[in-house]
Amino acid sequence: MITNKSCIIRLSRYKNALYRLRALGFVKVFSDNLADAIGVLPSQVRKDFSLFGISGNKRGGYQVDSLIEKLNTILGKEQTQEVIIAGLGNIGNALMKYKGFEKEGLKISACFDIDSTKYSRDSDIPVLPLEEMKEFVRAKRIKIGVIAVPDIAAQSVLDMMTACGIKGVLNFAPLRLRASGDIVVNNVNLELELENVIYFVNAQEKTKVS
Amino acid sequence: MITNKSCIIRLSRYKNALYRLRALGFVKVFSDNLADAIGVLPSQVRKDFSLFGISGNKRGGYQVDSLIEKLNTILGKEQTQEVIIAGLGNIGNALMKYKGFEKEGLKISACFDIDSTKYSRDSDIPVLPLEEMKEFVRAKRIKIGVIAVPDIAAQSVLDMMTACGIKGVLNFAPLRLRASGDIVVNNVNLELELENVIYFVNAQEKTKVS
Repeated sequence: MITNKSCIIRLSRYKNALYRLRALGFVKVFSDNLADAIGVLPSQVRKDFSLFGISGNKRGGYQVDSLIEKLNTILGKEQTQEVIIAGLGNIGNALMKYKGFEKEGLKISACFDIDSTKYSRDSDIPVLPLEEMKEFVRAKRIKIGVIAVPDIAAQSVLDMMTACGIKGVLNFAPLRLRASGDIVVNNVNLELELENVIYFVNAQEKTKVS
Repeated sequence: MITNKSCIIRLSRYKNALYRLRALGFVKVFSDNLADAIGVLPSQVRKDFSLFGISGNKRGGYQVDSLIEKLNTILGKEQTQEVIIAGLGNIGNALMKYKGFEKEGLKISACFDIDSTKYSRDSDIPVLPLEEMKEFVRAKRIKIGVIAVPDIAAQSVLDMMTACGIKGVLNFAPLRLRASGDIVVNNVNLELELENVIYFVNAQEKTKVS
């Protein structure tokens, strides 16, 4: 089992680049093309692919269609992945409407909240009471959850998801959650990402002044 | 100039943890406390701090107030940072309403879009035509921008921001942008983050079966 997160992120990026190149009429690509598209060295592309047993032909080229198929298999994209969201605040709402997920084979199956004024059972994506998560997740055998609730509720929602049988979580709450068992938690912290940009801008300005 | 992104992210996390600990009444903390709070080793905490000249007392403790102040100075948080957003779609909208930024000293000053039905000059956060970005950014000397426009518009918006004098960008469009000059671009790709969770969940399941 490969557990290098950066490598997996690169595979996703290659795949996205390949979809774009295919839309432009590309039938074959070289490691240089993919390297340029995602900003790494060609040797990195070849190394990543060989790690998963993907090899090009003698001239180093890859067939676009076959490469997309192989990457989708590695990334578990052969079938649509169902995902639930906890928390219909600003972020939860944006994720529900976000069109990028569908084309990546991700389907938001339901959203759960504690605010009864938000419930809507008959929407395309139903909004349900948090108490119904367990039944819903078990019936549909959903493995992936997104936490978009306020800080103070995030840990209890993670515990609830764990108890439901969720195996992987994308967490938007800006704190570290205690995960138990074999659940995978990936954190996205928007403030930190923005602070990071600000730090590097400030550092550049200071360098110029001094 | 320190250019290690992970280190800066850890500094932000320490700072967030410190605010939480201070709210709980902590006056002093030890590297072990901060290590537990963000999930690293205590030696990592001490190393990160010593890199920026922050040292504890003989017993290894740090005063919470003074530590927060030092971290804020390092992270450029002494003053409110003004930020503009390009694109008032789902993500742009969520960012405009997101309360997490304000308490981090980040202020969204305006949002720019090409859709005239979205304009509102008199809102708390004005929504303005994209053509007015240059004048606005220059007048207010804004250095930080967020790109939340569709893929196909992202590169031209980055070019526009660069021409306006923006120095750091947080990009939500799921493709690699070509940055010119000394502009810093940090990418947040929500599909990739979710795919990453899915990959590791699938990998775990395969391991169990085999």
